[in-house]
Amino acid sequence: MRELFIIKVGGNVIDDEKDMDLFLEKFSKIPFPKILVHGGGKIATEVSERLGIEAKMVDGKRITDKDTLKIVTMVYAGLVNKTIVGKLNRLGNSSLGICGADLNLIPARKRTGTAIDYGYVGDIITSEIPVERWAGMLDKDICPVVAPITAASNGGLLNTNADTIASALAQALCKTFKVTLIYCFEKDGVLQNPKDENSVIPVITPESYMLLKSSGVISKGMIPKLDNSWEAIRNGVYKVIIGNANKINELINSNLGTRLVLK
Amino acid sequence: MRELFIIKVGGNVIDDEKDMDLFLEKFSKIPFPKILVHGGGKIATEVSERLGIEAKMVDGKRITDKDTLKIVTMVYAGLVNKTIVGKLNRLGNSSLGICGADLNLIPARKRTGTAIDYGYVGDIITSEIPVERWAGMLDKDICPVVAPITAASNGGLLNTNADTIASALAQALCKTFKVTLIYCFEKDGVLQNPKDENSVIPVITPESYMLLKSSGVISKGMIPKLDNSWEAIRNGVYKVIIGNANKINELINSNLGTRLVLK
Repeated sequence: MRELFIIKVGGNVIDDEKDMDLFLEKFSKIPFPKILVHGGGKIATEVSERLGIEAKMVDGKRITDKDTLKIVTMVYAGLVNKTIVGKLNRLGNSSLGICGADLNLIPARKRTGTAIDYGYVGDIITSEIPVERWAGMLDKDICPVVAPITAASNGGLLNTNADTIASALAQALCKTFKVTLIYCFEKDGVLQNPKDENSVIPVITPESYMLLKSSGVISKGMIPKLDNSWEAIRNGVYKVIIGNANKINELINSNLGTRLVLK
Repeated sequence: MRELFIIKVGGNVIDDEKDMDLFLEKFSKIPFPKILVHGGGKIATEVSERLGIEAKMVDGKRITDKDTLKIVTMVYAGLVNKTIVGKLNRLGNSSLGICGADLNLIPARKRTGTAIDYGYVGDIITSEIPVERWAGMLDKDICPVVAPITAASNGGLLNTNADTIASALAQALCKTFKVTLIYCFEKDGVLQNPKDENSVIPVITPESYMLLKSSGVISKGMIPKLDNSWEAIRNGVYKVIIGNANKINELINSNLGTRLVLK
C-alpha cells in the first residue's frame, strides 16, 4: 500500500506568518500523497472581537451561533485556507483548498442530544466519507488543504473540530493507504512537564496513557487530541505522531516527537 | 462538442438570501457540464465597514489594499463560496468551491503599469488556464463554484473581477466545449430605458453596441460586462446572454434576456 501522510497543523503556528511560512516550506518537501488539515488559530477570535461579536460560552464550552459560524467560515475556509494554497502552489505543491462541504467530502450532521446546545457544530459521519473521491485526488498528486467546516445533509454549514477531521480522514483512508497521522503544533510533543520543552514523552501506549491522565500529566486540551489519535490507531491507522510543526520532516524521518503505539 | 454553460451571478442577487436560494434551485436544473462564477455582493463592503476599514478610492476606482484583500478573500472564497456549495450539494449538484488560486486554476498577475495603483488586483493570464484540469472536473459532472480571487506566481492572493473570470474561462474552454456564457443579475437584460424593466434589448451587435454607447443608453457599469462579452465572442465563445438570475432556465431555453451576436 502507498504511504499517505495526513498532517494537522494548529496552535500558534497558524497565527504567526513566519512560523507558518517555515512550516509550509518544510511541508512542501513531504512526499505525495499528503493531506493538510488546518485550524483557524486566533484569527477568528480577533475578527469576532473587531466585529463586536462576543464569544458565547456555556459551561466553559464555546457555542457556534449564526454569527460565529459566518466568521469561522470566512476565516477558516476563506482567508487561512486560500493563503496556504497560494503559498503551497508557489512551493511547487499542487494544492486544492477545500472544506468538508465541497463535493460533500466530509459528510457531517449537526450535533444534537448533548446537555449543552453547541449550535452549528458538526459531527463527522466517518463511514460516509467518499474514499474514492479522496483517492482520486491523491492519485493525481493533488494536495488537499482542508478547512474545518462541513455541511449537514440539509446543506447548512457546520463548524467542525480540525483534529477530529484529520482523525476521521485517516480512519476512512487507511484501507486504501498506509496512513501516518501527524498532529503538529508549537511544542515538541506531549510533555512530561509542561514547563520543560525537553521533557517530550517519546512513546505512549494505552496503558501509559491511563497513568499519564490519572496523574494529571496530560492536560485538558491534549485529551481530545489523544482520544482522536487512539481512535485512529484502533481503526487501522498505521502511526500517530504528535510534535513540532517546525520539525515536521524530522518527525517523519527520525524519532522526534511523541508516538502512539498500541503496545 | 459538448455544450458547457458558464454562469456568472452577481449584483443584488447575492445579497438577498431568498433570491439566491431561488436562483440556486433554478441553476441546479441546468444540465451538466456547468460552472458557476460568483461575485461578493455588498457583504464585503458591510464587513469592511463593521471592521472600520474604509474603502480606498482613487479617481473613483476602488483600491484593494492589504486589509481589503483579506476581507474579500474571507467573504468571497469563504462565506459566499461555501454557502453556495452547501446549498447546491443539497440540491443534488456535486459542487466544488474553488478560487483561482486552487491548483492554479486561473493564473494571474498583479496589475501594474496603470496610472492608478489598484493594489492587490489580479489580471488573468487566459492562455495559461489549465484547460485539461478544468475538463477533467467537468467530465466528472463536478460543478465548479468559482470565487473571484486568484494568485500570482509568487503565491500572493489577488482580488479579481468576477465578470472577467467568467469571460476568461469561457475563452479558455471554448476549444473543448461549445460554451454559452451567461451574465445574470437582478435585471431582465440590457435595458433601452433603465427605468423601464420591459425595455429589454433582445439582440446587440457590434454595430448597435457602438450606437447604444454613443447615445448613452448603455451606462458605465454595463460597459466592462459587455466588453468582456465581446472579447469572449470574438475568441470563439458560442453565445453570450445577459439577463435575470431568477429566469435563468428561460434565458437558456427561450429567447429572454439580451443576446450578443457578431452580426
